[in-house]
Amino acid sequence: MRDRLRRLVALTRMVTRPGPVPLLSEMADALQVAKSTLSEDLALVRDVLSEAGLGEIHTQVGVGGGVRFVEGLDVNQVRAALEVWVQALDEPDRMTGPGFLYMTDLLFRPELVDPLGALLAERLAGRSAGLVATVETKGIPLALAVSRALSIPVVLIRRDNRLSEGSSLSINYLSGSSHRIQSMSLARRAPVRGARVLFVDDFLKAGGTARAATDLLHEFDAEVVGVGVLVATASPAAKLVADVAACLRWEESSVAPTPWVAARLAAGAPAQQSTDPAAR
Amino acid sequence: MRDRLRRLVALTRMVTRPGPVPLLSEMADALQVAKSTLSEDLALVRDVLSEAGLGEIHTQVGVGGGVRFVEGLDVNQVRAALEVWVQALDEPDRMTGPGFLYMTDLLFRPELVDPLGALLAERLAGRSAGLVATVETKGIPLALAVSRALSIPVVLIRRDNRLSEGSSLSINYLSGSSHRIQSMSLARRAPVRGARVLFVDDFLKAGGTARAATDLLHEFDAEVVGVGVLVATASPAAKLVADVAACLRWEESSVAPTPWVAARLAAGAPAQQSTDPAAR
Repeated sequence: MRDRLRRLVALTRMVTRPGPVPLLSEMADALQVAKSTLSEDLALVRDVLSEAGLGEIHTQVGVGGGVRFVEGLDVNQVRAALEVWVQALDEPDRMTGPGFLYMTDLLFRPELVDPLGALLAERLAGRSAGLVATVETKGIPLALAVSRALSIPVVLIRRDNRLSEGSSLSINYLSGSSHRIQSMSLARRAPVRGARVLFVDDFLKAGGTARAATDLLHEFDAEVVGVGVLVATASPAAKLVADVAACLRWEESSVAPTPWVAARLAAGAPAQQSTDPAAR
Repeated sequence: MRDRLRRLVALTRMVTRPGPVPLLSEMADALQVAKSTLSEDLALVRDVLSEAGLGEIHTQVGVGGGVRFVEGLDVNQVRAALEVWVQALDEPDRMTGPGFLYMTDLLFRPELVDPLGALLAERLAGRSAGLVATVETKGIPLALAVSRALSIPVVLIRRDNRLSEGSSLSINYLSGSSHRIQSMSLARRAPVRGARVLFVDDFLKAGGTARAATDLLHEFDAEVVGVGVLVATASPAAKLVADVAACLRWEESSVAPTPWVAARLAAGAPAQQSTDPAAR
């Protein structure tokens, strides 16, 4: 019995660790059990994690027979990260110019960005996207967090043409916030053709960058099916892209979670529910 | 007994999930057990994970009484990622110019970069760094992966001065590869003062960028105590920074794991060892 306890601990970790999950046969070898025993253990792990809101294990039948683990949203982590964001962005010396906020330090702390990437991923999972796109630079950590949560790659749109990118397609556009002509470009060889794409960025004002990225991706027969950002400004109310999912709303130098985020937090933290079957 | 099985599965997941781990008291509440029972369960989880090479749980005594989980390196994931890198970089059409490789698509696939970030983190953990630094743009995913594995933030050095960064300190330098004058800048408010820093980038030729970043950080009283890159070129053999940890070595358009990486892979995959106590 103690062997089974130990096996279940190891199995839980193997199945839920980030990255590709080992094949069932590999796990059976590593744990030195028959595949039938492993299947029974796996069913228990799946049930416990699902009921506790700690994540979902999807078993893939067929050759090789693998499993895929989808992380449950940790609402407590999301709440803690949002509290840090709200407090930090309310500091008056974060404004470095009219409508410009210094956020670089916060955007590059994984514990503050990864939970919000998971939140946006949950919100946008229904769009069946195959790619996340972002324009360099500051949206990259959030884009990677969304991509990791959905197990899809990121395509990086560059600000300049770079020798390392090879031949590229460029687009010029008028930035809604700085009223300057800006450009962005995407390598012709970027693997985006025909994809359904989520556009992710750190900050959205008028949405000129998101609009231009949508147009540029359209040239590759790729379609933007959702937009997720960390902060959207209240003004202008009319954005150049429809249906923006923002974690925070910034209005007259004060910041707060958006209504859908507040509702998701209020819906509670599955991980806090009892995992004791006797108490269910 | 079945209750304990279920509790151990939930506890394993709670302790090992990414991000801050809940306090012992929070976990005891969520699992509806006494703290003494939880401590006993936690000791079992710690022993199993450690013995199987699946990670280390460090218990912090004191107010609150938390735990910290340090991921074990998954050598199989590292090997699988390196195989994809070696094969992809050997494709002749990846060369977009003399000494320039198109790698952007690969660098933004978390499953290819996160394992190598964990590998570099393990290699450089002894340097006791408090920060990871990178220069935008393509090194960012690897820098974030190292940062996540070591639970330390990333500081982003910019190529241009940006309004959102506020006042910045800039440095001009001669790029060893392109023989052009380039510049990089860091916001004065960036929280780096006095820090021990790991510099991480995607590609290193002569090391001019790493050298300039070291000098720039020195202006903030911060010290670069290690350099980690994905690919280093064989030529020039003399680099402008000492002691570069590279995952891959690129020589005359052919790429291979570096000696320390090959040795680490040969040292074997702890996760593949038996986790069955009866078979130890």
